[in-house]
Amino acid sequence: MVETNAAAFLGSLLVIFVSAKLFGEAAVRLGQPAVLGELLGGVVLGFGSLPFLRPDDPALGLMAEFGVVLLLFQTGIQSDLRGLLSVGSTSVAVASVGVAAPFLLGWAFLSLLGAPPMAAVLVGAALTATSVGITARVLYDSDALASREGQIILGAAVIDDVLGLIILSAVQGVVAQGRLSWPGVALNAALSAAFLAAALSFGPLLSKRLVALVPRMRVRGVLIVAALGFAFALALAAHAAGSALIVGAFMAGALLADTDRKEDIDGALQPVADVFVPVFFVMVGARVDLGAYNPLAPGSLAALGLAAGLVVAGCLGKIASGWAARERGLDRLGIGLGMIPRGEVGLIFAQVGLSSGAIDGSLYGVVVGVVVATTVLGPPLLDRRLRVSGGRARSSCRA
Amino acid sequence: MVETNAAAFLGSLLVIFVSAKLFGEAAVRLGQPAVLGELLGGVVLGFGSLPFLRPDDPALGLMAEFGVVLLLFQTGIQSDLRGLLSVGSTSVAVASVGVAAPFLLGWAFLSLLGAPPMAAVLVGAALTATSVGITARVLYDSDALASREGQIILGAAVIDDVLGLIILSAVQGVVAQGRLSWPGVALNAALSAAFLAAALSFGPLLSKRLVALVPRMRVRGVLIVAALGFAFALALAAHAAGSALIVGAFMAGALLADTDRKEDIDGALQPVADVFVPVFFVMVGARVDLGAYNPLAPGSLAALGLAAGLVVAGCLGKIASGWAARERGLDRLGIGLGMIPRGEVGLIFAQVGLSSGAIDGSLYGVVVGVVVATTVLGPPLLDRRLRVSGGRARSSCRA
Repeated sequence: MVETNAAAFLGSLLVIFVSAKLFGEAAVRLGQPAVLGELLGGVVLGFGSLPFLRPDDPALGLMAEFGVVLLLFQTGIQSDLRGLLSVGSTSVAVASVGVAAPFLLGWAFLSLLGAPPMAAVLVGAALTATSVGITARVLYDSDALASREGQIILGAAVIDDVLGLIILSAVQGVVAQGRLSWPGVALNAALSAAFLAAALSFGPLLSKRLVALVPRMRVRGVLIVAALGFAFALALAAHAAGSALIVGAFMAGALLADTDRKEDIDGALQPVADVFVPVFFVMVGARVDLGAYNPLAPGSLAALGLAAGLVVAGCLGKIASGWAARERGLDRLGIGLGMIPRGEVGLIFAQVGLSSGAIDGSLYGVVVGVVVATTVLGPPLLDRRLRVSGGRARSSCRA
Repeated sequence: MVETNAAAFLGSLLVIFVSAKLFGEAAVRLGQPAVLGELLGGVVLGFGSLPFLRPDDPALGLMAEFGVVLLLFQTGIQSDLRGLLSVGSTSVAVASVGVAAPFLLGWAFLSLLGAPPMAAVLVGAALTATSVGITARVLYDSDALASREGQIILGAAVIDDVLGLIILSAVQGVVAQGRLSWPGVALNAALSAAFLAAALSFGPLLSKRLVALVPRMRVRGVLIVAALGFAFALALAAHAAGSALIVGAFMAGALLADTDRKEDIDGALQPVADVFVPVFFVMVGARVDLGAYNPLAPGSLAALGLAAGLVVAGCLGKIASGWAARERGLDRLGIGLGMIPRGEVGLIFAQVGLSSGAIDGSLYGVVVGVVVATTVLGPPLLDRRLRVSGGRARSSCRA
């Protein structure tokens, strides 16, 4: 029955809403960003393995993807394309060091421990990509999205995601063919660059035409549907070019931010994002298997030690990236801390490694744990730093 | 890959958005309600059987259900609980005639044609339930939701849905056991009545407590999430009581309309509804199989004649219900026309009949066709009548 499936779906969303807001509220009252509460709420829901919230539910998975697309679209709208381009070279420098340093540290650490070369490469690669979603959300929670540091972090995280996806396609090629295919890597890099170039060249014209069309329509609710449709179209274009949906959604937001309906779109998008964005973070948390860290299980101490070493390598590598920002007066430590969270792309690396046999089940558990640990460590560290350095410039308004 | 599934999902939503707005705009420019355009847009998409829009896609089905729950929640917020209760007895009278008359006409028509008794009962029952969703949307499109006729129609349509679901459970019992189980019907009726009574008794206290809690929370986006959570919780309670999700969602909206945050909730819900409500109507349209009405296929003339007779029976029965409103000065024809659309509950009757073997495939096609025809005929008839009788009191604002 359709009605029964729909009831189960609404029930799952209700549980996600309640836990997101309860844990988010607890986090805020403890001086932490709300997103940390949502992630931990998801971990608790996943650990309880409640019958009405299966972490592998396909419909909830799609809602989570919808949520992260909305988040990046909203982040794009609230960021400033001209501002992003003006810090572009700094962002590229931060992103480059932020990819290279964690890769080298992770690869060296596993090689020193005697891991097979392919496993060392894969684990190093899993440490490279910064989570745009989590970083953007912490900056948003802390009202630091518009600061110069915030724009540099955001730009570097987006470039990082593009670099991460190019590395991923390279790693997938290595895993499938047993060797690195430089033409494949070059093609993927060229397509991603072509998408960004095309979006920056033709996007402004498209977004302005779309916005000009809206007042000429007589049917209701055109603005938000047209804006979301634009985001979906650019997300699909980015996906078709071998990049990520969220990169396209971010570009769509940045382009619409440069039109005269920016405020209206942002206002209409807010409640939609309020509803669906927490679904993404709760579901990321729910996919964590706490059972893998049972301290009484054999081998768990070695796994914990390995994980701790990789967390240190991942954090140090990203913190180093902050010093790639050469401008005077910047909070370099803040930028480095902002690059720490790994999130979704790191998890994709771990899944590729496991399904191809390049890493085994226990190393998979370690990599997932490291990704989650950096994801959970990043927000409070960045939030604390932003408050120390006065990033909370705007007064925070609550709804 | 999660990313590929998400891309297909976003692609389907994009197609739905574009067709909903293009066909909706065309309908408005031709002087028809937008919802008619959305339904026809869905029929066209379903007929084209595009690879990226499968009418049986489970995720899109859930989005459609989410859309109709949002629609009824919004309808509840924009209606006035005191107003609905003040027209309560009139609504009950209209609903009773609106259920009895189409049932008797449909049953008599099929019995005269020599159909088996069970098939005649099932087809008669499929003609009883008014679609709250479509009726509410036409009243909304025509700015007539707040008129006295609008409130009577809305109240009658909600009662009608409750009656329809009680009849459905009775019919399911008959189909399963071969005879009518009066205790089962009485239990279902008692549970539905108990849900409505409980919602009216304890609901106002709950909704006021919830609204009072919101400003005390420090985390962002609490109001819309709390409001939607309340709608989902009441929808699930209604479902558990054997009634429909949409009945609970409507009650939640009507209860929140009586709080001091009514305007804020309505404003925040608007963009969410703008995005998801059209998904419901496009998907209802996409499920129509036009191939069943190919005039060159054998037996299609008999099927068309049968369908035409049932459409007349269904429309006359519902128009008659308008004269059950005894108050002076009411537009009785307008009320009757407002009760014509059948929509989702009628389709559920057809599916129960088909899967139980009470009706065969060709009669199923006829019943679905009749439901769709009343759904498509109702909006323009009501819209025209509302404009003739001056229902468009408020100026229409477009976004």
